[in-house]
Amino acid sequence: MLNKKELKEYCTDARENYLPHISIDCVVFGFHEGLMKVLVLKMKDEGKWYLPGGFMLKKEPIETAANRILKERTGLDDIFLQQFHVFGDPERSKEHFEMYKDMLPANQNWFANRFLTIGYYALVDFCDVNPMPDQFSISCNWCDLNDVPELKLDHSLILKTALDTLRLHLNYQPVGYNLMPKEFTMPELQKLYETILDKKLDRRNFQRRMLGFGILSRSEQQRKGGAHKAPFLYSFDLEKYKAALVDGFKGGW
Amino acid sequence: MLNKKELKEYCTDARENYLPHISIDCVVFGFHEGLMKVLVLKMKDEGKWYLPGGFMLKKEPIETAANRILKERTGLDDIFLQQFHVFGDPERSKEHFEMYKDMLPANQNWFANRFLTIGYYALVDFCDVNPMPDQFSISCNWCDLNDVPELKLDHSLILKTALDTLRLHLNYQPVGYNLMPKEFTMPELQKLYETILDKKLDRRNFQRRMLGFGILSRSEQQRKGGAHKAPFLYSFDLEKYKAALVDGFKGGW
Repeated sequence: MLNKKELKEYCTDARENYLPHISIDCVVFGFHEGLMKVLVLKMKDEGKWYLPGGFMLKKEPIETAANRILKERTGLDDIFLQQFHVFGDPERSKEHFEMYKDMLPANQNWFANRFLTIGYYALVDFCDVNPMPDQFSISCNWCDLNDVPELKLDHSLILKTALDTLRLHLNYQPVGYNLMPKEFTMPELQKLYETILDKKLDRRNFQRRMLGFGILSRSEQQRKGGAHKAPFLYSFDLEKYKAALVDGFKGGW
Repeated sequence: MLNKKELKEYCTDARENYLPHISIDCVVFGFHEGLMKVLVLKMKDEGKWYLPGGFMLKKEPIETAANRILKERTGLDDIFLQQFHVFGDPERSKEHFEMYKDMLPANQNWFANRFLTIGYYALVDFCDVNPMPDQFSISCNWCDLNDVPELKLDHSLILKTALDTLRLHLNYQPVGYNLMPKEFTMPELQKLYETILDKKLDRRNFQRRMLGFGILSRSEQQRKGGAHKAPFLYSFDLEKYKAALVDGFKGGW
């Protein structure tokens, strides 16, 4: 939470630089070896938790704004963010208005605005990145998805919608390029899907379906060592993977 | 196109009532017996074509705004609109600014604003509705999808994105409840999918897959008449259909 002087400075700066009524919030899902987490910020003083979010510069493309905001708030750079929904309940930013309304009259108070927020999500390997809190936050943490603290505003809804959308997208879009090692076994890829979906999948069906999508190349080499038959190694065929991101999987309609 | 007096009135009214920087555009796809069309408006004077769109009242929920705008601009009421994307190129509304910039100084000119537009799409049977142009339009027409006139602003991109999204959604969400008669044959449903996808589908695969989704009930009655074996009649199981709209098809992951 800002004090009165900080609030005044923030609002003056915001009115000058940002589009009013529009914000961006980012849901960054982090994966590693069967764990799935989400990145949340704890605000100074307030001690409440938020998704990393912010405002759009007056002439900034939305995607550029989403990436800049994520970088400013968490230190995460060069992350592919996918737009998924606009949240526009007229009361959704009321908590912020209430919090600041006694400090500044409404016509000078940025937070007296109604804000629509554009939701973006991203998938990263949480071992590959090093999140850092910004000046407004005391911490920037990976929270286990089953153990997310209460989030302010409508950020719980935004998180839930991102997760639902991601799970639906698994039905027609590939996932995992930046989450898997260059070469991986089918059970390792299945583990990623099981983690996202939070359920067990049948091994044979998974393999049949995944191979049917035509985005995997099988290596000549099998993985060495271990007591069992050496498993085949796969990698993503990047060209086909990218085509499927745009057009959906073949084997659809 | 508005004249100077109309523009001034429009801008005064808009500043008072609408959220700046945000608009809504609707892509209404119309279907009937193998035809697929889209609803477009031709503006007075200008003679240019647009998707039906408009602005959001200051305290209006987005979905309410989308439905009100569609009704005001085309007469279409009570249509299910699905949000699909926000278009935010900083230059996307430049044409409107250029068109009106000599008539009114920028600080009074609503169209000097940058607008992000939220895209919604809907599917209707074009024989069930009766579109009517509003006061700004000389016509409100169903255009064959293969024969859409050049659209202004980024409305061609919005239309293309809506169509791509609809086609991807067919992979995990049902379609057709308001487009098919209460009872229909499998070839009739296949025809709808072929129309949306603009390609032929294999009859057996279609039937197998569609039945696998578990959203159809088969009638005890078969259709009478005709020289061939009477085809089975199906209807949507509305409960399962609605569940699949939310959760995606079973038979996904």
